[in-house]
Amino acid sequence: MKNTDVLVIGGGPSGAVAAMTARKNYKNKSITVVRKEQRPVVPCGIPYVFSRLESVESDAPTSTAYADNNIDLVIDEVTHLNTDDKIVSLQNSEEIQYDKLILALGSGPVQIPINGADKENVWLIKKDFDYLIQLREVVEKAQNVVVIGGGFIGVEIAEDMSRRENLNVSIVEKGDTCLATMLDEEFALAAEDKLREKGVNIVTGVSIEEITGDGRADGVKLDNGEFLPADVVVMSIGARPSVDLVKDTDIHLGMYGAIWVDEYMRTSIPDVLAVGDCAETRDFFTGKHVPVMLASTASAEARVAGSNLFQLRVIRENKGTLGSFSTSINGLVISATGMTESRALSEGFDVVVGEAQAPNHHPGTLPNTQQITIKLIFSRLSGTLLGAQMMGPESISELDNMLALAIQQELTVFDFDTLQISTHPLLTTAPTNYPVITAAQDALSQMEHLTNK
Amino acid sequence: MKNTDVLVIGGGPSGAVAAMTARKNYKNKSITVVRKEQRPVVPCGIPYVFSRLESVESDAPTSTAYADNNIDLVIDEVTHLNTDDKIVSLQNSEEIQYDKLILALGSGPVQIPINGADKENVWLIKKDFDYLIQLREVVEKAQNVVVIGGGFIGVEIAEDMSRRENLNVSIVEKGDTCLATMLDEEFALAAEDKLREKGVNIVTGVSIEEITGDGRADGVKLDNGEFLPADVVVMSIGARPSVDLVKDTDIHLGMYGAIWVDEYMRTSIPDVLAVGDCAETRDFFTGKHVPVMLASTASAEARVAGSNLFQLRVIRENKGTLGSFSTSINGLVISATGMTESRALSEGFDVVVGEAQAPNHHPGTLPNTQQITIKLIFSRLSGTLLGAQMMGPESISELDNMLALAIQQELTVFDFDTLQISTHPLLTTAPTNYPVITAAQDALSQMEHLTNK
Repeated sequence: MKNTDVLVIGGGPSGAVAAMTARKNYKNKSITVVRKEQRPVVPCGIPYVFSRLESVESDAPTSTAYADNNIDLVIDEVTHLNTDDKIVSLQNSEEIQYDKLILALGSGPVQIPINGADKENVWLIKKDFDYLIQLREVVEKAQNVVVIGGGFIGVEIAEDMSRRENLNVSIVEKGDTCLATMLDEEFALAAEDKLREKGVNIVTGVSIEEITGDGRADGVKLDNGEFLPADVVVMSIGARPSVDLVKDTDIHLGMYGAIWVDEYMRTSIPDVLAVGDCAETRDFFTGKHVPVMLASTASAEARVAGSNLFQLRVIRENKGTLGSFSTSINGLVISATGMTESRALSEGFDVVVGEAQAPNHHPGTLPNTQQITIKLIFSRLSGTLLGAQMMGPESISELDNMLALAIQQELTVFDFDTLQISTHPLLTTAPTNYPVITAAQDALSQMEHLTNK
Repeated sequence: MKNTDVLVIGGGPSGAVAAMTARKNYKNKSITVVRKEQRPVVPCGIPYVFSRLESVESDAPTSTAYADNNIDLVIDEVTHLNTDDKIVSLQNSEEIQYDKLILALGSGPVQIPINGADKENVWLIKKDFDYLIQLREVVEKAQNVVVIGGGFIGVEIAEDMSRRENLNVSIVEKGDTCLATMLDEEFALAAEDKLREKGVNIVTGVSIEEITGDGRADGVKLDNGEFLPADVVVMSIGARPSVDLVKDTDIHLGMYGAIWVDEYMRTSIPDVLAVGDCAETRDFFTGKHVPVMLASTASAEARVAGSNLFQLRVIRENKGTLGSFSTSINGLVISATGMTESRALSEGFDVVVGEAQAPNHHPGTLPNTQQITIKLIFSRLSGTLLGAQMMGPESISELDNMLALAIQQELTVFDFDTLQISTHPLLTTAPTNYPVITAAQDALSQMEHLTNK
């Protein structure tokens, strides 16, 4: 039997970061990662294997990271977990006894019962190298692709595919707009416009009646009577936590079927932690369990776990998870952090919205000037920032991180009035008109109890 | 005599923002701005009137902003200020009596006694429309330009000029590197490399012996014996506050000759405030008076003043000024916020430096991937972030704002370990390797009192 001080099950982003962080924090401990994938893929890069990336092979993480950090990598599947004796069994290798165990089991695609979903050329988005190689091959030969689901994975796949010549791409989304969990309507519609500019056919507010065809799918029949021809159907409905391994243990699951964890990512069983998509996430604002599955969130959780294995050393403020998100659609970057206005309202928050638009250069006559649009959502009475959405050039993605930090630091509308920033003519909006500040001022002007004296 | 509730003297960024902010906060007050420039220019845009901008005319602020906000604009020069009776005299118009006065007098170029500096084709960088028109005209005809001073204005002018065909551009800098007040050596040298790639000749560590020529300058003789031919010499040595107007008043000046102000930008005389380059700035970390003259800083001060004219309403935390700065040199964006390592050391801080490099896309095989380099400077014992420098693609400019916020919020090295960010394959570094976090972890690993248990 092999022995290790720290065992990580799962080699995706959360498992990798947990192991690397453990190595930084505990220089003398032995660390082992068990991963079932012979060839891992970068999950965030999967939507881009159809056009921007030359091949599925180029969507690979650095292969030497484990060896460089003196972490033992075992490529095998864990078949059983015995938390009493702290032993895991593997399909092809000897058992491993651990002192501390980190579960980074990830997630898999949701499958919903659609008529015809079992047909030959209906695909899911799996984090599986060989599967993706095959999917890319069929897409290369296809003329019509229908993507079912307009969440961010579906949208990104459709956008990347739309860059292929002679390929017709459609998105079918049940909700009123694509990206509705991340974006309010005005931003979601801007995203749809950019997709349509690339020729993507978007059908929203409809359900699938049937995937038609004899053995092989030849199209998708919608409940509005419309028919979309398809040689490839991609189902991108969402993901659910992979928790099969813990089903026979005493490790508790939470409300949505993910592994229950405390603030330090500790499960209900001593010396067993869980991070990433398989672990339950609590919302920053409400403390509710929310199904946020982002590599960025997973990495943050993994850093907390990897720093706190043997003692609680990096104190985590009890803040919950802030979903922050960026995407790029046909040259337009759209980002969001915290709550959308519609989610804030449905959670019962009394909100004030501040908006601003400004060019990303000053003067706006400089070459390549683009427009920035920002929306900030504040709590009316306290002035606390609850959420932000923005779109514009590439720098929007780091502006999103600035606003994510602002939420984490509980900034109010007043903090923006005295905020100190850096600006540059070729790089940002003018200091006189910086849209984060003007949007906050717009909100402030609507807070009568604060501004009327 | 004209009467106004709020009078702003100066129509640069700080004057404009002070007036606009006052309008937002005090809807029923009359507001007047007196500006001497018939045609104002955007100060930050001046370096780019030589190549990127089509003309000096295109470096103009929005001309309707005052009228749109019901602010009276008087174009005239103030000749006298009487703070006892609260009256200002103007060259060509009637006197104006005010209730609250905001001085936004700006700054002018430093002139140092160099032999030959009075020659015909030796130019300063003035925020003066007609002067800049003439300068652009002579640059259009020139073959050899020598820029004296390698601060950010000198560097940006040289970089923009280097985009003109058949123009040789040199920078002469007394210090060891260009940009030494904003950047540590490794970042300053990277900036110099990018300038040299564009053909700019950089001579550092030298002084000017003489600007040679008979009436018209024909070159610059350096104290190392070198001679640089020149049809145009541009002196860009720095700026000093314009305070002539207050010299006959009781308004106190501070150590560096700027107007003394309290935290709410109030001068030593009741009802008189000062903002921007003419007002004294206190350093964020030490409280020392520092000669920071940036439009972004000026705008922040103007917002504080404009919000607090009649009562102190927007409470400013006593934090001082954080110099934050971004520039773009031949496609490389370089940013900094807070203290450089060398300044921190010379101020007596015990520091730890964390460094990281990472591609700005993940996987790095995606098209147009560029490298990001980050340096974070922390206080060794407390772990507080003191400064950051970074370079890479355009998004660096907003990353700088995120780190400026982190300093303003007094984040420590531990906060970065649990920081929640958003990432995207086409837009940012991987979540597993986000360089702000890895640089912080690099610093943490050097803090033995914190990491050794």
